[in-house]
Amino acid sequence: MRVLVLNGPNLNLLGHREPHLYGSTTLAEIEARLGELAAELGVTIECRQSNHEGVLVDWIHGAKGAFDAILFNAGAYTHTSIALRDALAAVGLPTIEVHLSNVHAREEFRRHSMLAPVCRGVISGFGPLSYLLALRALIDNKRSES
Amino acid sequence: MRVLVLNGPNLNLLGHREPHLYGSTTLAEIEARLGELAAELGVTIECRQSNHEGVLVDWIHGAKGAFDAILFNAGAYTHTSIALRDALAAVGLPTIEVHLSNVHAREEFRRHSMLAPVCRGVISGFGPLSYLLALRALIDNKRSES
Amino acid sequence: MRVLVLNGPNLNLLGHREPHLYGSTTLAEIEARLGELAAELGVTIECRQSNHEGVLVDWIHGAKGAFDAILFNAGAYTHTSIALRDALAAVGLPTIEVHLSNVHAREEFRRHSMLAPVCRGVISGFGPLSYLLALRALIDNKRSES
Amino acid sequence: MRVLVLNGPNLNLLGHREPHLYGSTTLAEIEARLGELAAELGVTIECRQSNHEGVLVDWIHGAKGAFDAILFNAGAYTHTSIALRDALAAVGLPTIEVHLSNVHAREEFRRHSMLAPVCRGVISGFGPLSYLLALRALIDNKRSES
Amino acid sequence: MRVLVLNGPNLNLLGHREPHLYGSTTLAEIEARLGELAAELGVTIECRQSNHEGVLVDWIHGAKGAFDAILFNAGAYTHTSIALRDALAAVGLPTIEVHLSNVHAREEFRRHSMLAPVCRGVISGFGPLSYLLALRALIDNKRSES
Amino acid sequence: MRVLVLNGPNLNLLGHREPHLYGSTTLAEIEARLGELAAELGVTIECRQSNHEGVLVDWIHGAKGAFDAILFNAGAYTHTSIALRDALAAVGLPTIEVHLSNVHAREEFRRHSMLAPVCRGVISGFGPLSYLLALRALIDNKRSES
Amino acid sequence: MRVLVLNGPNLNLLGHREPHLYGSTTLAEIEARLGELAAELGVTIECRQSNHEGVLVDWIHGAKGAFDAILFNAGAYTHTSIALRDALAAVGLPTIEVHLSNVHAREEFRRHSMLAPVCRGVISGFGPLSYLLALRALIDNKRSES
Amino acid sequence: MRVLVLNGPNLNLLGHREPHLYGSTTLAEIEARLGELAAELGVTIECRQSNHEGVLVDWIHGAKGAFDAILFNAGAYTHTSIALRDALAAVGLPTIEVHLSNVHAREEFRRHSMLAPVCRGVISGFGPLSYLLALRALIDNKRSES
Amino acid sequence: MRVLVLNGPNLNLLGHREPHLYGSTTLAEIEARLGELAAELGVTIECRQSNHEGVLVDWIHGAKGAFDAILFNAGAYTHTSIALRDALAAVGLPTIEVHLSNVHAREEFRRHSMLAPVCRGVISGFGPLSYLLALRALIDNKRSES
Amino acid sequence: MRVLVLNGPNLNLLGHREPHLYGSTTLAEIEARLGELAAELGVTIECRQSNHEGVLVDWIHGAKGAFDAILFNAGAYTHTSIALRDALAAVGLPTIEVHLSNVHAREEFRRHSMLAPVCRGVISGFGPLSYLLALRALIDNKRSES
Amino acid sequence: MRVLVLNGPNLNLLGHREPHLYGSTTLAEIEARLGELAAELGVTIECRQSNHEGVLVDWIHGAKGAFDAILFNAGAYTHTSIALRDALAAVGLPTIEVHLSNVHAREEFRRHSMLAPVCRGVISGFGPLSYLLALRALIDNKRSES
Amino acid sequence: MRVLVLNGPNLNLLGHREPHLYGSTTLAEIEARLGELAAELGVTIECRQSNHEGVLVDWIHGAKGAFDAILFNAGAYTHTSIALRDALAAVGLPTIEVHLSNVHAREEFRRHSMLAPVCRGVISGFGPLSYLLALRALIDNKRSES
Repeated sequence: MRVLVLNGPNLNLLGHREPHLYGSTTLAEIEARLGELAAELGVTIECRQSNHEGVLVDWIHGAKGAFDAILFNAGAYTHTSIALRDALAAVGLPTIEVHLSNVHAREEFRRHSMLAPVCRGVISGFGPLSYLLALRALIDNKRSES
Repeated sequence: MRVLVLNGPNLNLLGHREPHLYGSTTLAEIEARLGELAAELGVTIECRQSNHEGVLVDWIHGAKGAFDAILFNAGAYTHTSIALRDALAAVGLPTIEVHLSNVHAREEFRRHSMLAPVCRGVISGFGPLSYLLALRALIDNKRSES
Repeated sequence: MRVLVLNGPNLNLLGHREPHLYGSTTLAEIEARLGELAAELGVTIECRQSNHEGVLVDWIHGAKGAFDAILFNAGAYTHTSIALRDALAAVGLPTIEVHLSNVHAREEFRRHSMLAPVCRGVISGFGPLSYLLALRALIDNKRSES
Repeated sequence: MRVLVLNGPNLNLLGHREPHLYGSTTLAEIEARLGELAAELGVTIECRQSNHEGVLVDWIHGAKGAFDAILFNAGAYTHTSIALRDALAAVGLPTIEVHLSNVHAREEFRRHSMLAPVCRGVISGFGPLSYLLALRALIDNKRSES
Repeated sequence: MRVLVLNGPNLNLLGHREPHLYGSTTLAEIEARLGELAAELGVTIECRQSNHEGVLVDWIHGAKGAFDAILFNAGAYTHTSIALRDALAAVGLPTIEVHLSNVHAREEFRRHSMLAPVCRGVISGFGPLSYLLALRALIDNKRSES
Repeated sequence: MRVLVLNGPNLNLLGHREPHLYGSTTLAEIEARLGELAAELGVTIECRQSNHEGVLVDWIHGAKGAFDAILFNAGAYTHTSIALRDALAAVGLPTIEVHLSNVHAREEFRRHSMLAPVCRGVISGFGPLSYLLALRALIDNKRSES
Repeated sequence: MRVLVLNGPNLNLLGHREPHLYGSTTLAEIEARLGELAAELGVTIECRQSNHEGVLVDWIHGAKGAFDAILFNAGAYTHTSIALRDALAAVGLPTIEVHLSNVHAREEFRRHSMLAPVCRGVISGFGPLSYLLALRALIDNKRSES
Repeated sequence: MRVLVLNGPNLNLLGHREPHLYGSTTLAEIEARLGELAAELGVTIECRQSNHEGVLVDWIHGAKGAFDAILFNAGAYTHTSIALRDALAAVGLPTIEVHLSNVHAREEFRRHSMLAPVCRGVISGFGPLSYLLALRALIDNKRSES
Repeated sequence: MRVLVLNGPNLNLLGHREPHLYGSTTLAEIEARLGELAAELGVTIECRQSNHEGVLVDWIHGAKGAFDAILFNAGAYTHTSIALRDALAAVGLPTIEVHLSNVHAREEFRRHSMLAPVCRGVISGFGPLSYLLALRALIDNKRSES
Repeated sequence: MRVLVLNGPNLNLLGHREPHLYGSTTLAEIEARLGELAAELGVTIECRQSNHEGVLVDWIHGAKGAFDAILFNAGAYTHTSIALRDALAAVGLPTIEVHLSNVHAREEFRRHSMLAPVCRGVISGFGPLSYLLALRALIDNKRSES
Repeated sequence: MRVLVLNGPNLNLLGHREPHLYGSTTLAEIEARLGELAAELGVTIECRQSNHEGVLVDWIHGAKGAFDAILFNAGAYTHTSIALRDALAAVGLPTIEVHLSNVHAREEFRRHSMLAPVCRGVISGFGPLSYLLALRALIDNKRSES
Repeated sequence: MRVLVLNGPNLNLLGHREPHLYGSTTLAEIEARLGELAAELGVTIECRQSNHEGVLVDWIHGAKGAFDAILFNAGAYTHTSIALRDALAAVGLPTIEVHLSNVHAREEFRRHSMLAPVCRGVISGFGPLSYLLALRALIDNKRSES
């Protein structure tokens, strides 16, 4: 099983900025931990980050055939991007929406997700752990299907 | 670590009704799987279900001192109960909101959670697996704090 | 054919309070009239009333197998209870929503029904007669199906 | 007792179109059944249908003195016509709003009735039976008043 | 100067129904008084009433060339008819919106006028006097223009 | 009969500013014309203008006993002042809301009147003529009452 | 192939009024051009116009069997008529919604179409050309289906 | 005079949790102080608390005949419970809505009270003192009525 | 302790107008009763009333240093005045919002208070008694702080 | 005449994904057909597609001088992009908004177009044919202008 | 060039109250600094402050002829006063809206300005510097016009 | 002091397009003037423009350490981009939002800024001067802090 791990705008700053909101772990560290868990569970992951909505759309398109699932923290685009929603719906890969912070405890405009309706599920609020849980969820889901 | 697993209205019917929406696993089976995972991870769980908002409030009150965390699928009350929100805020135990189905892909009125702002995080859409992920999240959170 | 007749909050006060709004017939008298009509039409009815949302949910759950249909005046819960809606959807028994008063001629918040979308139909505004009409509707519906 | 049975726009197509929504009974058949029930109950009915809002207003005006009550399925005009509402309020005849389908289980814009606040009551969701129940309701109402 | 006096739905019932709302003067009496005032002021009026939105649209179309101004009580259509608005805008005759009752002191949905933005002005709340004032307004307007 | 003619904020600028919106007649000229009509009709008028909401409230209070009716162009306060509404309701004098321009053809926030529900009627859109019509309306109303 | 070309309220005034909005071509000229194109493409058209919502409903009903498709400019009724929507849905003929002007560049209330969800598609903003394009669309659609 | 003092969900936790919001006085202490004031003023009080909406409805029903007034802090149910509103309206006892905290200075959803329209008045924001003031209000009201 | 008692627009009319809404007690009588209670409790009060928002703002400014608390019935300005809210926030004196009538049982626009979020608490619905209760509340609050 | 044909996000997937929604024709095939029609009609087209909002803005800027018109399917950006709207308004080239599917029959958020108010017109719902119709519309428009 | 510097409600308290929000500079100090800059730039300023909406309206009226521009911090009235908006529009002097604090980072109701649409521009968030920048803006604007 | 001057979508067209809205000065000219003022005030500026939201996010990230402040005209992205807001909040550099036109006097959707709450202040409506004022504001702010 191959999983594409996508991170959206500003997530490259993780650990460097606003640790009271997002913790002090960097994106590289999260990806490292994800890599270890992936190895342990026998799956492959590839991690990418972009601040460009269009690049994220391109990568989702390219995931078809190359990956079996997507683990996606779309950051700010979660709340407004119909283009990403359409892209996910188009490629049809099982996708999990992930958030580091508990988006429901923040500004009102972060409580609505444009992507969630086309994802399998949502995991939010657990910091870096959100990613690890999502990876487990993808694999367990896969298993229960086969 | 002791975890109170609470299930709200209609979750006693799990597996018996509307399997296309909620799957065919019964609540007892979910609790059994949770029990196994708890044992494996060295934590204690206690599972309760009620269709009564007031009973759920009472149980949350009683959890203070008796439990270290709450894993909560409040079902329909998720979207409307200020009483449950106040109860969770009052006892202050780390709580995770759990849903079997992806609530964002259903009726509009299920997209708003009254409870999420006072929870640590939310996990929704993975069927019974949602509970197992939540238990892991609680334990890992605990560890990273100590 | 066995019909469960459920009455929600404050309907136990019928006939005793606010007769200008709800008439002077008591709930017992309505149930008596329903009993006569049921006998005449050869069906069995059982009447229950509760002010507790949770109790009503429990009774709906218990109706599966024990009853063939539900005649339901959910009173104030009509307008807000997702739990009752989910319970009705879960057991799947044909249900009719009944109101004594014409809810459309009262406060704005009484014009929306959370339950109606999962019921067969709605009868409102005819006082005690609403129940008798609903019983006929259930039976005629049954007949036209068999 | 003389009852005017009014049907609004598109109800002339009943039974010929979209049977999954409105059933396969034609308007003529409904009117025939209503006629039988009327005869049995000793009342007179007169049935009319029009797709024109203005014609329906005219007929309601003309009902004063000629009829004792109105049984009204205003179809699409139910949700928007202030003119019909004012007409019903002006002539002051007891009126029952009737719908074949359960309007609450369809598009959002069908959940609001402009007419219901000036009607005695509403019966919706029972197919042709809705009309028969409404006729009974009118007669029983009449009796309980005299 | 020739003035077309148009009355919309239900205004034919004036004086016969709901006198507490609309007074006891009939439409014929209002038209007679208008006729006297018109004679006194040296203008011609023609009075028409219809419950049909389409007929009112037709009459407005026909007014071009035949009349110099319109005095219009559109009744219930005031609040919803884009067709009448477009008709008035198309023929471009100076038009005054008239109401017998004070529409602002009634239901919320009567406070919005779809027609007023394409009229010269609005006179509401003075009973039959509203029409007489409107006729004076049309004539004085005409004079101040010439 | 004694009529208090009140003008609210910015109406002192009439005729001096924005003639395309409000015409070139000054407030003094309007008051002069009103005075002529009043003399002709045998009534007394007193004209006042203030830009201060509080002063207008004071004047309305003082009108009780000293005047028989109020002719009121509240200008910008029309749309927001609950204080003026309460003052009018408290003194209970018959009041007519007047506007020079057709407020419905301007910005959305000018379409709502806080005062109209406690006035007898509204006359808007006829320039200075609006005042003259309102004076006639007050007098005719008075006559038809006596 | 037989196409019914329907025009709603005020479209009979085309070319005679407000040319800055709707152009100077008359409805007759549009129908003539449509007739030429129809002849060229080997289809039959019949053109009708009415200002009456009810008449338009009647004509749609009558189109079943007599026509293969509808080309419909419902004018003002586009934005409010549930009756026309239900009529189109009931007869099930492929229908194209047409507008002369670009409705999105006008008043807010013209941006919502009640009919579009039950039509094949929408063409707006091209003046008389909108009709010609719609006719081509109907024919090409037909061809690609057979 | 006999007063029923009702406390809704989570108020049993008073003084034990979130003292920054609700103070450090326990419900028992408030009730003791209320008892002293009641004794001093010569009235009888009975204090009850429940987290169950249904139980509160039952108690309100039972208050008829047994008590002369209700002093009610409905907590979270204040903002959503139509059932409690209907119960208060049905028994018709003079009721005062009480809140410890200033609900207007908290979350938006706490600014709306479903109960206040059927209560005599509201006292909020004075901590335990709110209850004492309410008791005085009930007694003084009683006196001024007799 | 020195308390400034402020009354806003139209409260000078108390007892003279609309006694069914506001009772027959005059403002002078309320102030007299407040004076007696103040004397009894050993505090000083000064009572002022104005219909001018600006004057009320000025008085609030002047209260700093001269008074220890404010008892404020802002009347109509309660619902709209950001200026009064800012003034109260700026001087920082403990303030209680008072209303004679139960504002929640009146028009919708009276249910929102712009001032309450910057006040200690709100007392509404008890007629003149509201003021007396508020004075007690201020004094008791003071005591519990010292 | 030179026409720039722009396609926005996800349209590169046309024909490969979700054929029930968008048909089985690929974007290349549509462009080929457009090319044939362009050749036949004697105009030049250039086709581009991008998932990047910024790239689309750049291309629109570059179109000034190089092209005479734009045929634009902005996909998901249609509903949210003010940047594209401003770009179209800035270059001022006649533009037609095109959609394959009938956007009015899909999710609510697809019914609003941010671009349409600055376009000449809109064609939606005809699959690949929408593009061909739009090309004809551009050319016919051009002709009628010259 | 003569500039009228107007300050609205509560700005007289600047520097004395809530320095965390508005800084510790007094209004007199700001006016002194403005005076220095004015002298340096060769313009005349006159500074006035009032808590009275009506006084501010009067001053704006009086500015016509006496001043060439207005620098206006309307404080709380910014968000609600149509009277001030109309006054500014009526005198037509170039006006700049100024705020000390960043109004967009505060309560929701402070994000809307009723005045901005009739001003040249807005400068907010720079404390006393906002005034100095606004003075420069007025002068530079003047220069670029002459 | 080093200032990054960022311009968002379509601002590269400044001076070339729609001069009635944005003036005839080009972006290069504005940057030149800014350069002169920067030189005069002894600060360094670097000017960049992009139509790509992602590029702007990247540049903001890169500003940390390289610049001391940001002067930002985000154009159309001002109103919708949560990604830019998050980027600004993450790097924490003092930022000023700048607009050439008075956004409050244009379409409703331009009145809301997603960025303003995380900026120091906003300057809008002064054409190219807005940039110069913003540069002064940044420098003066800096000085008053040191």
